[in-house]
Amino acid sequence: MTNSFVQQDEVQALLRESAGLNSPEGNERFKAITHRLLENICGLIDDYNVTQEEFWHAINYLHELGGRQEAALLAAGLGLEHFLDLRQDAIDAAQQRETGGTPRTIEGPLYVANAPLAQGHARMDDGKDPGETLWLHGVVTDTKGQPVANAIVDIWHANTLGNYSFFDQSQSEYNLRRRIQTGADGRYSVRTIMPSGYGCPPDGPTQKLLDLLGRHGNRPAHIHFFVSAPGHKHLTSQINFNGDEYLWDDFAFATRDGLIADPIKVNDEQKIRERDLEGPHTEIRFDFTLCKALSVDEEGRITRSRAKE
Amino acid sequence: MTNSFVQQDEVQALLRESAGLNSPEGNERFKAITHRLLENICGLIDDYNVTQEEFWHAINYLHELGGRQEAALLAAGLGLEHFLDLRQDAIDAAQQRETGGTPRTIEGPLYVANAPLAQGHARMDDGKDPGETLWLHGVVTDTKGQPVANAIVDIWHANTLGNYSFFDQSQSEYNLRRRIQTGADGRYSVRTIMPSGYGCPPDGPTQKLLDLLGRHGNRPAHIHFFVSAPGHKHLTSQINFNGDEYLWDDFAFATRDGLIADPIKVNDEQKIRERDLEGPHTEIRFDFTLCKALSVDEEGRITRSRAKE
Repeated sequence: MTNSFVQQDEVQALLRESAGLNSPEGNERFKAITHRLLENICGLIDDYNVTQEEFWHAINYLHELGGRQEAALLAAGLGLEHFLDLRQDAIDAAQQRETGGTPRTIEGPLYVANAPLAQGHARMDDGKDPGETLWLHGVVTDTKGQPVANAIVDIWHANTLGNYSFFDQSQSEYNLRRRIQTGADGRYSVRTIMPSGYGCPPDGPTQKLLDLLGRHGNRPAHIHFFVSAPGHKHLTSQINFNGDEYLWDDFAFATRDGLIADPIKVNDEQKIRERDLEGPHTEIRFDFTLCKALSVDEEGRITRSRAKE
Repeated sequence: MTNSFVQQDEVQALLRESAGLNSPEGNERFKAITHRLLENICGLIDDYNVTQEEFWHAINYLHELGGRQEAALLAAGLGLEHFLDLRQDAIDAAQQRETGGTPRTIEGPLYVANAPLAQGHARMDDGKDPGETLWLHGVVTDTKGQPVANAIVDIWHANTLGNYSFFDQSQSEYNLRRRIQTGADGRYSVRTIMPSGYGCPPDGPTQKLLDLLGRHGNRPAHIHFFVSAPGHKHLTSQINFNGDEYLWDDFAFATRDGLIADPIKVNDEQKIRERDLEGPHTEIRFDFTLCKALSVDEEGRITRSRAKE
């Protein structure tokens, strides 16, 4: 920081006192981070000549953002969640871990824990959504191509209106949310419906901020996954679909190479019968490759506030 | 910023895209400020090796902070509101304005607009508070010592429990909130009760953060003022009282030289009669000196979200 006003003794003394640096109590790491953040904010105010009106507008925005519980959505929309993924990739690379695992991407704020658990296969939709039937399947392997048994493939996605059960109370409990445990062959399959993309709540604070940035708040259609198995590093990821208007224009920056699936139209009568489906449908095959965990901690997802967890 | 990871092309491209720098729409100033803030946050995450768990803990904190509407309280507690005052002082000094005005200090988040207006004198308390009776008075002058007529002295303060009417629904409407208009002599006086200091809500997010910083969340007793008059620069200020335990240890950093009053015990029978009071009471005299306004805009208070405004 080169800003001369923020460097003045009176301001520096204020920031030290504010961040608790003069106190023997409290958490030293938290104090240091708070001090840095305050110095950043004061430097920004001074460099951009932020007015008192602008400052209080921002404070009021925080009231609205928190009141609507949209801070996690905004963190995705401002690319911070994707930044954490890029940074984790760099940390993994620096550790010279095995490569070739399925790429991670953002979790988003709409996971609900403890969806029904099935062996090998489940139907995810409750039959009320008019969407195109989707047969989604694949195999979980390790980086040597060996099937991973007892992997849990935890899948969640939106309905054809782009809404998620639990947050959308009009859907049945755990609609479009299931956990599949793989057998010895490492395979999972689900019958579900094709999800739609969605936009931020149009009257919410995230969209309001995006408007000021000249940005839209839309996501391409996608399916979320947690994939975990004993001895393997937990994977948080999503897949998108080729042909989607927003495929490479996701407001949350989640699309990544290696996470794009090709939906295929299936008219084959034998496949339809084998799958016990009513007729033509869409099929997506997506395989997951898990890396070895270097510690038991790595087998689990990160801790963050989630529904029903 | 010297951080190498944040400087990588992929991260820089993300931050430009996130802040809307690639979009022809939106507000250029807002984009630039957002971009700077994102670069600061990413640099902080990288420099302090902020974990994903810590990041989501912070996001969840924003939900709690906004949900409880405590962002303005936190801004005071982190010294940012005082920083804005220091910065405004520096701007005033750079403009070579007339000096000698009463110092500004923070407004705080508890003002309610449109309190009852009286000429010269008012009683502020509703008679239900057991606190010590306070006779508060003074004169509003310009920097040459001339009385200012038609000044509005807008006063608000806490009761003996440290609570403010409106936010404390147990108090009557506008209790301890009044506006006094001065006459030709520039004088104002009020009968009220001595306020108590107060602390942040003990179960709220501001206090939780202060705990981690090893800081208390208490304020000394104080009385808030807006003082405005045609042709004069609006003043936002507070007074504190000599002898208060927290006089120079205000968690909101509002105490300033020139804003400390001496409460005096009055036993004089004639004064008690003149003031139409029941007996001994406390007297505080506090005069205000207003500076000339350089524009009509300066005559008014800043715009921020306030109750009943």
